[in-house]
Amino acid sequence: MLGRTNRQWILVQRPEGMFSEENFKWVESPVPSVKDGEFLLRNLWLSCDPTQMGWMKVDTYVPKVPLGEAMRAFGIGEVVESRNSGFRVGDLLAGLIGWQDYVVIGVDNLNAVQRVPPNVPPELTLSLFGLTGMTAYFGVTDIGKVAAGETFVVSSAAGAVGSIAGQIAKIHGAHVVGIAGGRAKCDWLRKEAGFDVAIDYRSEKVGSRLSEVCPNGIDVYFDNVGGEILDDVLTRINLHARIVLCGAISGYASRQYRALTNYYTLIGKRGRMEGFIILDYAPRFGEAAKALAGWSAEGRLKQKLDIAVGLENAPKTLARLFHGENFGKQLLKIADPAERRPS
Amino acid sequence: MLGRTNRQWILVQRPEGMFSEENFKWVESPVPSVKDGEFLLRNLWLSCDPTQMGWMKVDTYVPKVPLGEAMRAFGIGEVVESRNSGFRVGDLLAGLIGWQDYVVIGVDNLNAVQRVPPNVPPELTLSLFGLTGMTAYFGVTDIGKVAAGETFVVSSAAGAVGSIAGQIAKIHGAHVVGIAGGRAKCDWLRKEAGFDVAIDYRSEKVGSRLSEVCPNGIDVYFDNVGGEILDDVLTRINLHARIVLCGAISGYASRQYRALTNYYTLIGKRGRMEGFIILDYAPRFGEAAKALAGWSAEGRLKQKLDIAVGLENAPKTLARLFHGENFGKQLLKIADPAERRPS
Repeated sequence: MLGRTNRQWILVQRPEGMFSEENFKWVESPVPSVKDGEFLLRNLWLSCDPTQMGWMKVDTYVPKVPLGEAMRAFGIGEVVESRNSGFRVGDLLAGLIGWQDYVVIGVDNLNAVQRVPPNVPPELTLSLFGLTGMTAYFGVTDIGKVAAGETFVVSSAAGAVGSIAGQIAKIHGAHVVGIAGGRAKCDWLRKEAGFDVAIDYRSEKVGSRLSEVCPNGIDVYFDNVGGEILDDVLTRINLHARIVLCGAISGYASRQYRALTNYYTLIGKRGRMEGFIILDYAPRFGEAAKALAGWSAEGRLKQKLDIAVGLENAPKTLARLFHGENFGKQLLKIADPAERRPS
Repeated sequence: MLGRTNRQWILVQRPEGMFSEENFKWVESPVPSVKDGEFLLRNLWLSCDPTQMGWMKVDTYVPKVPLGEAMRAFGIGEVVESRNSGFRVGDLLAGLIGWQDYVVIGVDNLNAVQRVPPNVPPELTLSLFGLTGMTAYFGVTDIGKVAAGETFVVSSAAGAVGSIAGQIAKIHGAHVVGIAGGRAKCDWLRKEAGFDVAIDYRSEKVGSRLSEVCPNGIDVYFDNVGGEILDDVLTRINLHARIVLCGAISGYASRQYRALTNYYTLIGKRGRMEGFIILDYAPRFGEAAKALAGWSAEGRLKQKLDIAVGLENAPKTLARLFHGENFGKQLLKIADPAERRPS
C-alpha cells in the first residue's frame, strides 16, 4: 500500500458545547506499513452515533478520544493487506475503525473489530444487526420490560434506535407512540413502521398530545433525548412505569443539561428510571441477533438508512444527529469495496 | 361516652406551598355515638410523617384528604367503648386515626387499624416496628440492594427512616455516610447510631465532603430530601448505582420541585433511580418485622424518638419535619391510656 494516502480527521481540541470542524484537523499522510501479525483495513462505512459527542469531551464508559488521534467511530472496513494468517484480503470487519481511510489492526486493537456475518449486507451490520438493533432490543425487553397492552412511548422515534425500539414494542403487543420532528418522519412511523401514533414535536405540543393519545397513561418511555420531553412524560406515567434512559441527545451539545423538574413522580408511581450501556449486554448479543433476524425475515422490522458520502463530510454528517436532520440510521459511505468478497 | 368532647383539626383549605394552622379549623363537638358492630377509639399517639403534606394537597398513592374532614394521620388509640365482639375495652390499635381525640371504627374503616403487638411499646409500633422501620428495611434491602463493602449514603440521616436505613446498611457491611443538619445530630449518628461518617449540611459543603468521604464513589443513595443533595450525589455515583427515592421533603413545601441537573449520569453509570411506596410491601411486612426485632434485640438498632405533647400542637409538630427540627421519629402524644391494657 506504499504510495497511497491515508486521510484522517484528527481530534485537536475538545468542544465546549456543540462540536464543529474547528475541533478537528484534516490530515493526509502515507498509509502506515503493516508489520508481522498485523493487517490493513480500508474503511468503507462509518456509523454516526450520538455517543460520539461524549467521546470527544469526557471520560465516560470509555476513555475520551486522546487529542492528536483520529476521531473514534464504529464502521466497516475491508482487509486490503494482511500479514496475519487469520485474516485474508477481502475480509469484511466491523468495529472501532475511526474517521480515516485506513487503519492497521494488530495485537493492540484486534478485539476492536469482528467479522461481518456473510449473509448480512454490510450497512445493516452497523444498524439493525449492530449496536443499534442491540440497543433497541435490550432497552425495550430488558430495561423497559414492555408487556402486551401497555403504552410505550419513544423519542427520536424516526432515529436509528428509536424506530427499531418502537417496532419491537409493537411486536410485543404494546400501544406504541413515537415522537419525531417533522411530517415526513411522522408519516413514515405510522405508515411504514406500524406505530399507532406519531407526535410531531416541531408542530405539536408534546405534553397535551401525550395526554390525548395515552388515555391510559404511559408504562414505558424509551428516552433518547432527555430534557423537556422527559419532563412531559414523567407527569403522565403509570404505576410501576419504566423510564429507559438510552440517551439524552438534547443535552449533549450544551455544557449543562436541561434540569428535570418532575422526577419526584417516580416516588408516588413507584417508577424506575434506569440507564444502560449496550456493551454490558455483549454476552447476550446472540439472543438479540436471533430475534431481530427472525422478525426482519418476517417483514416485521423496517430499518431506514440515511446515507451520506465522503470522509471529508464526517463532522457535518455526525452533526446532523444533533439537529434532528437524520431520518433513520445515519451512515457515511467513504469507499466501495475494492476486492471481491470471498463467499 | 356521651358528654365527652371530641377535639379535631379539620382540613378546610388546601395549602399552596407550606401548610399552616390557617389550613385547618379547630372544632370541638360531642363524641359520636357507637352503633352495633362499631367501637370507639380514644387516640393516644399521633405519628408525624412527611407524606402527610402530600395528603393535604393532591391525589397520589392515596386520595387527598377531603375538605371538611379531620386531617389524616397514623397513630395509636385505645378502645374505650365497644359494640363489636372482636374488640374489648383496653385493646390498643394502630392505624389511620386522624388528628382528633376520638374516632368510631366500623365496617367502613376497620381495615385502617390493626392490633398493636402485645410485647411492643406503643410508640415503637409507630416507628421502628411500624411503617418507619418497614420503609427503611425494604428501601435498603429491596430497592437499594446494598452489599458488603459498598458505600451507602443517606439524607435526613437523623430522621425517622434515615437513621434506621443507615443502621441497616451498616449491618449489611456497607460504609455508611449520613447527611443531617446540625452538630448534635451528626454526633449522634457517629457515636450512637454507628455511622462511619456524618456530614452536617448546615455547616459543610455536601458535594466536596462527599468526594472526601466516599473515595470509592457512591453505590447506594437513600434519598429522603431530593433537590440539591441528590444532584451532588448523582455526579459521584458508581457503575450500577441505585438511587432509592424514598421521599423528596425539600420539595414538598413548594409548588415546584427544584429541578435535577445531573440525572444523565445514570446513563453512563448504568444507574437506577427508583421510587417506592411502603404499602406495596404489606405482604412482606412479617419478614421485615422479624429482622428488625432480631437486630433490635441484639442492640444493633437505635431508634431515637422526638416527642411533642398535645393535640392542639398537631400542625406545628408536623411542621417541624419540614424545617429539619425533628431529631429522630417525630411523635405527638395526645393522651395517656385510660384503661389497663389486658395482658
